[in-house]
Amino acid sequence: MIPENALDELRAMLGERLSTGKGDLDLHGQSETWHPPMPPDAVSYPRSTQEVADIVAVCARHNVPVIGWGTGTALEGHASAPRGGVTVDFRHMAAVLEVRAEDMLVRVQPGCTREALNQELRATGMMFPVDPGANASLGGMAATRASGTTAVRYGTMRDQVRGLEVVLADGRVIRTGTLAAKTSAGYDLTSLFVGSEGTLGLITELTLRLHGQPEAISAAVCAFPDTGAAIDTVILATQMGLRPARVEFLDAATAQIINDHDGGTFEMRPHLMLEFHGSDAAVAEEAERFGALAAEAGGSGYRWATQVEDRNRLWAMRHAAYHTILASRPGSTAVVTDVCVPISRMGEAIDRAAAEIAASPIPGPILGHVGDGNYHAILLVDRSSETELAQAKRLSDAMVLHALDLGGTATGEHGVGLGKLHMMAREHGAAWDVMGAVKRALDPDGLMNPGKLVRQN
Amino acid sequence: MIPENALDELRAMLGERLSTGKGDLDLHGQSETWHPPMPPDAVSYPRSTQEVADIVAVCARHNVPVIGWGTGTALEGHASAPRGGVTVDFRHMAAVLEVRAEDMLVRVQPGCTREALNQELRATGMMFPVDPGANASLGGMAATRASGTTAVRYGTMRDQVRGLEVVLADGRVIRTGTLAAKTSAGYDLTSLFVGSEGTLGLITELTLRLHGQPEAISAAVCAFPDTGAAIDTVILATQMGLRPARVEFLDAATAQIINDHDGGTFEMRPHLMLEFHGSDAAVAEEAERFGALAAEAGGSGYRWATQVEDRNRLWAMRHAAYHTILASRPGSTAVVTDVCVPISRMGEAIDRAAAEIAASPIPGPILGHVGDGNYHAILLVDRSSETELAQAKRLSDAMVLHALDLGGTATGEHGVGLGKLHMMAREHGAAWDVMGAVKRALDPDGLMNPGKLVRQN
Repeated sequence: MIPENALDELRAMLGERLSTGKGDLDLHGQSETWHPPMPPDAVSYPRSTQEVADIVAVCARHNVPVIGWGTGTALEGHASAPRGGVTVDFRHMAAVLEVRAEDMLVRVQPGCTREALNQELRATGMMFPVDPGANASLGGMAATRASGTTAVRYGTMRDQVRGLEVVLADGRVIRTGTLAAKTSAGYDLTSLFVGSEGTLGLITELTLRLHGQPEAISAAVCAFPDTGAAIDTVILATQMGLRPARVEFLDAATAQIINDHDGGTFEMRPHLMLEFHGSDAAVAEEAERFGALAAEAGGSGYRWATQVEDRNRLWAMRHAAYHTILASRPGSTAVVTDVCVPISRMGEAIDRAAAEIAASPIPGPILGHVGDGNYHAILLVDRSSETELAQAKRLSDAMVLHALDLGGTATGEHGVGLGKLHMMAREHGAAWDVMGAVKRALDPDGLMNPGKLVRQN
Repeated sequence: MIPENALDELRAMLGERLSTGKGDLDLHGQSETWHPPMPPDAVSYPRSTQEVADIVAVCARHNVPVIGWGTGTALEGHASAPRGGVTVDFRHMAAVLEVRAEDMLVRVQPGCTREALNQELRATGMMFPVDPGANASLGGMAATRASGTTAVRYGTMRDQVRGLEVVLADGRVIRTGTLAAKTSAGYDLTSLFVGSEGTLGLITELTLRLHGQPEAISAAVCAFPDTGAAIDTVILATQMGLRPARVEFLDAATAQIINDHDGGTFEMRPHLMLEFHGSDAAVAEEAERFGALAAEAGGSGYRWATQVEDRNRLWAMRHAAYHTILASRPGSTAVVTDVCVPISRMGEAIDRAAAEIAASPIPGPILGHVGDGNYHAILLVDRSSETELAQAKRLSDAMVLHALDLGGTATGEHGVGLGKLHMMAREHGAAWDVMGAVKRALDPDGLMNPGKLVRQN
């Protein structure tokens, strides 16, 4: 429990922006997925970097954990408070601070969501492309090294974050990176904090790269005889230099669920859904070249469209897929797997996972960001069944172990949080100890988001 | 001095592959630029990761510094041995270990040079694009986060390194990253070691991204009325989505030197030299669109070519420029500046630097990778004149301070080494202390390339 005098100090600083109400604590302890609720002792709502630094300094003095909070859309329990402490909710630090059009950069506060940023950018001809599905906060997306459907063309948060302002565990404020496009001036602290899940410090400002809004967009969908044919088409397209902005894989089980629950008319086969960005001529050419490759691989029903309504029709079901899948089993919660493998091994990895899921009692359709080798089985477990949860975790662990055998990773984009912690020693070996050494160097008392990412002492 | 029993242990392990001959020591203590020679006590030539680990372990036991050595082409004294110790020369660890065509990845040993790799890749349709000028080793390029002319399209070493094998200061061997295109599994140790200049460990293997060889290449050159017009054209082209593979800036002083010493026929004005990669149609279109933008900005003499001989003719003088400039003042050595600024401020930064150089007695033509905001003044100082060296350093420091004021960095691609160490506190503030904390966590005895990058105790 948090010492009362620590609460007093925080209350003196924040007034009503420090909350210990049960509703607030419960809200900030819950998870989008199967992780049990773990509420903090208090929730703070700072308005400035200085306030964040002051909160962290008070917590450091009283040995109280500090947990960052964006929009609460993490899937691996990142923002829960297994050791209590003070959650720092960034909702009042959500401004777009500066758009630098010539440099194609933007400075934002961490609570700004990706949709709010793109809304702000609409008239500028620029956009922020990373799309993890949820309308997550940009601070949270940086903290988990998020990516999503567009990473295949634009890269992940690792590629977008030019610099950060960070409050360290002792309350010091540092700036990493610069406004320049590149630097060789010492250790890449920006990359160290991106993906550190709040365990090394709290991000209080981000400088992000922007991209031009595409002149034209085309969307396409195609069925394939089997997983391998779909993946091989993507490999070939990549080797030929096609640069789709999205390449999504849906397995036959997903097609079935969308047909049954969202009025889809998919063939009962694996599908690819694609989007191309570029000039009018370029997106037409890319869509046609991809169609030719798909046909050679036995693809069927290839359709593509450039008009907004037609594109939206093609993609609407994919955008809704996660919730359609969740709703297909009422009363269920999801264990969402997140392995990422070298694309050359993706076909066999997906086929093996699908076979293991099919041999289990648990439904688990598979969706993937196939250009990156990243895919998710949405394992639907009865919310009240410990047995099903255990089975789903076993399936997930088996997928991870197979991915590691293939040279892949336990998590392509969701992060470690609580849910992948037990796989880190296996994935990294001695490198996980190096992560622990970095953690101890920056947070010797282990107060920044404790219980996550690194070995627990 | 290295203890004799440490030398005995290393000799027992390496035989003739441990050298203490004066020629060898001198060779490994010298620098390409103005930095004074600082030879090590011994040079080792390991053949395997295990040998590297054993060398480092012996040195750790005897408190002896360890310095990595690729091709010795660093410009900031990175591989010199100010505290003596053992240099690890990777010339016998230069193999291309595995080409993974479907994953567009290659595994190489650190001593492999970029030209050797591209030679090996010729028949595969793929290439490794990073081109810092020198035929540097890939291990060295990763260690300094090198980039060069093609970074504007393909990115720097930061963007190419998918994973590393590293020997740590205590002799442990770790692997960072995976073969997958992305990962959110913990701290980005790959990015931490890229650019760490051998101060955290020695890179013994690299997994690198490959890119398709372009179907077609076009090259272009254009004169501009002034620096601002050239830079503004690049900004506009970038905003319009043009993606040149190279955009090099040459100032009027460079044009003059090339005309005088390499038979050039440049106008006495700033120039841009460009290269476009893509399909036949795309490179023609990009070259034409760029030409139209250049014309609007008052550009003159715009020429472009797609035939190899014509392209080579356009670019040959740029490729030779550094040596042409050096040779233009016999007996001189170079202080090569390396600031990088936000491109929106690049015009004013170059103009101010050129004015300060012109007001000094030192010649200093300016070349730049203008798409990245990175440019170099080649300050030519009399090898024997301490006064000129001091003047050049003052000019360089002034450029750095101005770059920092503009939100830029002291070094875009050459690294810190010895030459930029005195600017790190200024550039990073408290973040430099964080780098020091990371250093102490991974190398508590300060034996890995001591004297470089972090604060010296």
